[in-house]
Amino acid sequence: MAIDLRLDPGEVPLLLDLYHLTMAAGFFEHGFNDTACFSMWVRRMPASRGFLVAAGTERFLEALEEFHFDGAALDYFDSLKLFKPEFLHFLGSLRFTGEVRAVREGTIVFTEEPVLEVRAPLIEAQLLETLALNQIGMATLIASKAARCYGAARGRRLVDFGLRRSQGADAGLIAARSSYLAGFDGSASVLAGKRYNIPLFGTMAHSFIMVHESEREGYANFARTFPHLTTLLVDTYDTLRGVENAAAVARELEREGIRVQAVRLDSGDLLDLSRKSRRILDERGLHAVAIFASGNLDEHKIDALLRAGAPIDGFGVGSAMVTSNDLPALDAVYKLVEYQGKPRLKCSTEKATLPGSKQVFRALDSVGRFLGDMLGLSEESVHSVAQSFRPAPVRVEPLLATQMREGRRVPPRPSLTDARQVFLESWSKLEQRFKGLQRPDAYPVGHTGALKAMLIEQRLQVPGRQA
Amino acid sequence: MAIDLRLDPGEVPLLLDLYHLTMAAGFFEHGFNDTACFSMWVRRMPASRGFLVAAGTERFLEALEEFHFDGAALDYFDSLKLFKPEFLHFLGSLRFTGEVRAVREGTIVFTEEPVLEVRAPLIEAQLLETLALNQIGMATLIASKAARCYGAARGRRLVDFGLRRSQGADAGLIAARSSYLAGFDGSASVLAGKRYNIPLFGTMAHSFIMVHESEREGYANFARTFPHLTTLLVDTYDTLRGVENAAAVARELEREGIRVQAVRLDSGDLLDLSRKSRRILDERGLHAVAIFASGNLDEHKIDALLRAGAPIDGFGVGSAMVTSNDLPALDAVYKLVEYQGKPRLKCSTEKATLPGSKQVFRALDSVGRFLGDMLGLSEESVHSVAQSFRPAPVRVEPLLATQMREGRRVPPRPSLTDARQVFLESWSKLEQRFKGLQRPDAYPVGHTGALKAMLIEQRLQVPGRQA
Repeated sequence: MAIDLRLDPGEVPLLLDLYHLTMAAGFFEHGFNDTACFSMWVRRMPASRGFLVAAGTERFLEALEEFHFDGAALDYFDSLKLFKPEFLHFLGSLRFTGEVRAVREGTIVFTEEPVLEVRAPLIEAQLLETLALNQIGMATLIASKAARCYGAARGRRLVDFGLRRSQGADAGLIAARSSYLAGFDGSASVLAGKRYNIPLFGTMAHSFIMVHESEREGYANFARTFPHLTTLLVDTYDTLRGVENAAAVARELEREGIRVQAVRLDSGDLLDLSRKSRRILDERGLHAVAIFASGNLDEHKIDALLRAGAPIDGFGVGSAMVTSNDLPALDAVYKLVEYQGKPRLKCSTEKATLPGSKQVFRALDSVGRFLGDMLGLSEESVHSVAQSFRPAPVRVEPLLATQMREGRRVPPRPSLTDARQVFLESWSKLEQRFKGLQRPDAYPVGHTGALKAMLIEQRLQVPGRQA
Repeated sequence: MAIDLRLDPGEVPLLLDLYHLTMAAGFFEHGFNDTACFSMWVRRMPASRGFLVAAGTERFLEALEEFHFDGAALDYFDSLKLFKPEFLHFLGSLRFTGEVRAVREGTIVFTEEPVLEVRAPLIEAQLLETLALNQIGMATLIASKAARCYGAARGRRLVDFGLRRSQGADAGLIAARSSYLAGFDGSASVLAGKRYNIPLFGTMAHSFIMVHESEREGYANFARTFPHLTTLLVDTYDTLRGVENAAAVARELEREGIRVQAVRLDSGDLLDLSRKSRRILDERGLHAVAIFASGNLDEHKIDALLRAGAPIDGFGVGSAMVTSNDLPALDAVYKLVEYQGKPRLKCSTEKATLPGSKQVFRALDSVGRFLGDMLGLSEESVHSVAQSFRPAPVRVEPLLATQMREGRRVPPRPSLTDARQVFLESWSKLEQRFKGLQRPDAYPVGHTGALKAMLIEQRLQVPGRQA
């Protein structure tokens, strides 16, 4: 069953660019394979975006544990007629043997801050570039977007409705997981429910009504089959008449002991329709029937509806969230920052990198609220960095922790529920002014003196390298 | 090796929403499973977008051939405590037995035009909604975006550099395939090369230079390992000094019989840098060394560079193309249009559907150029529709063809190369004014008299259904 719409475990390590293989061959031939450190971070975001929610490292680490090129992969490399047999033999025996430090999934981070550092023999570390950017990039992108929806929804129910509009199958899975991690209540995607044990939500589509001779018959048939899962879609023909029909059926079914849970609005002016629907339902004594809304929603529309007092109890969010439509890709990079124990620096226009293996130090006040972060070198101590924060924080936490050593996971392996907990806590500790949807305040991220000194030293050395 | 970053063949049918299962259970219980026809089309696009390039049907059809719920899937459904044993038993024996009509991959189509019609027992057809929208939607989205780049590049080489920024693994594969289909010359993605036999391109990253003590040493080492694949990245430190170093190494290597093929610019003002780089190379007699550019490119930037006369011979395009950044999701729908032989219609605000199973009729002039399309009913004949075009076309072609009958593929199965050929021909037959990047002319799409008559008849019937 070699169908195209699948990804075999043996194909995961092939999520790389040709230049990773050619560089690896160059390194191999010229004897470059000492310890390197690569760092991954997001360079910048539009002014409307204030924060990131780290995600995707679990999958990445899982893939590293299994990382190897199988026979089919080696045969393909050979067919390219670019590589020598010694190199292919070397690739065949390659496993990931290095160390990975990463921010915990669910942690709120900011641009410039490393979310991942890989320390390994140069070739191993270099081959992971695309896998890291593709997977951690996408998961972080969606968790960050979903968190904005979470903030806008002010505690109302949020459900991922996006699988149909996600960019492929993997994107749909990542979006369901990342949005649940970032505060959503569940997803409509059955595969995501099965894989991640995420609560599933869903009811009916217009076609269910359309095959029936009348809307009321459709509602009644559905409710009798799913007496405990009855949300009635009211906009197949005319929305408010649909609500009236739903209300009539709900009253009728009460006699059979079936309680309709909600009506769902899926088009039109949701503010006006939700008010009128609430009135219709209340007039018929159906105060307990909730109103659920969907249809091209995003964080801005949810925010506007709730600010205007729309009586909506839950939202289904699709395309905008699962594609992060205002920012469909993060400007994330995975760069060499150290080789043979020496910091390395790239300085091309507007894409300069900070040298050296790093740590992100977060200052907290007495109630755990985030005061600001400091980017420093990985070997700096929390104690020494604490001195450089003004005012002095109650506590300083390093965000990057070792999650893999010598190619093996360092326990514990956090579950998705753990990651969701990390997010919810992180969210509650970040002041509202950094979470705005339009022009959030810039969260303070400084550089330690040691990092600044290294940067100056490196800049002085570069001209020599290019001579 | 049950790692999260993979998709097993048995998981493909689970790319559906919970409501598909609950509706199916409702249909099953209340005896609705007669023949239905579902149609998929894109409702609308922004004014900057004129056309679509159909793609993704091959994968979808492949998935249909294998469609069934395995034991693990049925166990999961059972665990949801929503479904009766008879229904689960029914699902276990379900296979796709219907007919699929689709537009050939690579064909240029427009909003409102069906790209896919599925005719099958209601439950089978309904369960495919998300799979169709997710897969055909994404592939069409990217092929359409890539075609815009193809138009802008005016025959220059185009390479997909986007795997690192694509929305997950599947998105990267789809993007590589769809962009190749829509005129790209190849991809950097190794897995896409292996899967689809797409030509691979790629050279080196900044890290290759950074581990060397000097830029020149890095260039020389790379060129000696890959004497036939030498594109030198010049912006690790200072771009123009990088070009000078590349030129010096190129002259030196000429004596060893190694020809440097290109330099690659990856940041900065590409117009200015490409001109200065060309001058440096030409002054040293390196007229044959090409200039390749990358770095946040999209169709607009490529167009502007070439209009300004930038001496660039090829482009690597990443994030913008692989995420279709100006339009990251298509407003595509998969709707019931017929049940039990009767046309069905949905008329909620702004989301109304046209009833009935359809055909897209395309009028061509004597040189095959597209004159306009007509949406009609599937049973209408080309001959009768031809009469309603003004002026009378030389030829009328129906775009939807039967690709699957009774659950089996109807030969031939077109290859990716075939699809690319269909696109290139389609592209050459569509006038430039419909292909503009900003505000293309609206391509004429009309409705046949028979379709209009059916719409009126249906509208008259709807109020009764909602009574």
